[in-house]
Amino acid sequence: MNKKMNLLMFSGDYDKALAALILANTARELDVDVTMFFAFWGLFLVRDPEKVTFDNKTAFESMFGMVTPKGPEELPLSRMNMAGLGKQMLLDMMDDEKTPSLTDFLNGARKKGVKFYGCKLSVDVMGFEESELLPEVKVITAKEYLSDALDSDMQLFI
Amino acid sequence: MNKKMNLLMFSGDYDKALAALILANTARELDVDVTMFFAFWGLFLVRDPEKVTFDNKTAFESMFGMVTPKGPEELPLSRMNMAGLGKQMLLDMMDDEKTPSLTDFLNGARKKGVKFYGCKLSVDVMGFEESELLPEVKVITAKEYLSDALDSDMQLFI
Amino acid sequence: MNKKMNLLMFSGDYDKALAALILANTARELDVDVTMFFAFWGLFLVRDPEKVTFDNKTAFESMFGMVTPKGPEELPLSRMNMAGLGKQMLLDMMDDEKTPSLTDFLNGARKKGVKFYGCKLSVDVMGFEESELLPEVKVITAKEYLSDALDSDMQLFI
Repeated sequence: MNKKMNLLMFSGDYDKALAALILANTARELDVDVTMFFAFWGLFLVRDPEKVTFDNKTAFESMFGMVTPKGPEELPLSRMNMAGLGKQMLLDMMDDEKTPSLTDFLNGARKKGVKFYGCKLSVDVMGFEESELLPEVKVITAKEYLSDALDSDMQLFI
Repeated sequence: MNKKMNLLMFSGDYDKALAALILANTARELDVDVTMFFAFWGLFLVRDPEKVTFDNKTAFESMFGMVTPKGPEELPLSRMNMAGLGKQMLLDMMDDEKTPSLTDFLNGARKKGVKFYGCKLSVDVMGFEESELLPEVKVITAKEYLSDALDSDMQLFI
Repeated sequence: MNKKMNLLMFSGDYDKALAALILANTARELDVDVTMFFAFWGLFLVRDPEKVTFDNKTAFESMFGMVTPKGPEELPLSRMNMAGLGKQMLLDMMDDEKTPSLTDFLNGARKKGVKFYGCKLSVDVMGFEESELLPEVKVITAKEYLSDALDSDMQLFI
C-alpha cells in the first residue's frame, strides 16, 4: 500500500504554495498518495483566473473576490514582498536557474493525480462558487478532510 | 483506542486560531482525542480578558501584557488585517453565513474536552501568570508536550 | 528503535526558529532522532555569518545575499518586529528569565546531533554556496527529504 501525505493549505502565499507544490509533485514521483485541502487564503491558489463571477454574491463578496488574488500568479510572497518588487526578484532568480513557475508545479500536480479538496466553510464564507475553482477541486467539509488526514503518514499545515 | 491529534498553537492570528478550533471541534465529534499546546503568540488566544493582572510583573511585562491581544476577539488576521478593516469584513461575511464566532468555537472546544496546555517557557518569558489564562489551561514544559505529541496520529504547527 | 521527528524550516523568523530549536533540543534529550530541513527563508538560519562570499554569484544573488539575514541573530520576528524594537523587547524579556539565546539553542542542536539538511533547489535559486552554510548542513533534494520525513513519527512545517 502507498504511503500518504496530506497538506492543509491555509496560507495564500506564493512562496509557501511553491514549497507545497514541490513537495506534492515530488511525493507523487515517489508513488506517495497526496491530498491537498485548501482553506481560507489557501483557496486563492485554486481559483481559476478565467472564471470569476459576480452572480449570487453580496456586495461584500464581490468586492472581496475582486481585491484578492485570482489564481497562482497573483499570490504575494509571505515576506519581502515589498509591493511586488521582492516577488519579481525571486521570479527572476528562479528564471536564472530555469526553475519551473508556480503555475507549472500546479499543473504538474493536477496531471500527476494529486487530490484537490476545497473547504466548504471557507468557500461559503468567502462567497466563492464551486464553478470559480479549478475543475479538479472537490468541496468537502472539515469532517471529511479530517477523516482523510488522520490516516496519512504525514500532515503539514502550510 | 481513539485516534489522537495534537495542535501546536504558535501564531496569535484570528484566522489561524479559527482554523485550528474548527479542526479541534470537528475532531472531537469524530471521537478523536485532541490536545492543543499554546506557545509564544498562541498564548494570547487563551488569555482570560477578565483576569489581566499587573502583580509580580516587571515594567516590560506589564506593558507587553497591555499592548498584546487579550483573548480570542482581539486577535488580528494573519493577512489583510488592514488595521482591523479586513478583520471586520471577515466577521461580517462570517455573520452573513451564520458561522459561529471564534469565541463560540473556543467555548465549544472547552466543553467538548479538548485538552489545553500552555508552554511554561513562553508563560515565563512573556510574564503571564497562570491565573490570567483560561481555567482549562495547564502549564507544562516542552518535554511534556513532546512526549504527548510524538504519540499522536497527527501533529500540526499552526 | 528511537522515535523520529522531522522539522521543515521554511520561515526565516527569529521566534519560529526559537520554537523549532527548543523542540529539537528537547527531542534529543528524549532520545528522539531529529532532522531539520532548511528551505527558502529557513536557510537564513544556517548561514554562517563569517563566511559570506560574492564569488560565482550574479548581481541579483549578491544583492540578495547582502540584504537578507546572515545567521540566527539577524532574523526578524514573525510579528510585532516593529523595525527591531519588538525583537529587542523579546530579547530583554528572555534575558530577564535567563533564557538561552537562539544561537545557544542552535549550537545545542549541533552538539546534540540534530541532523541538518539544506534544500538544493532553494540553495540554487538564492545563489548560496554550500561553503556559506554551517559545516553540519548537507544539501539534499526534496526527494531525499521526503523519503526521510515520511518515516518520521512527527513532521512540522515551521
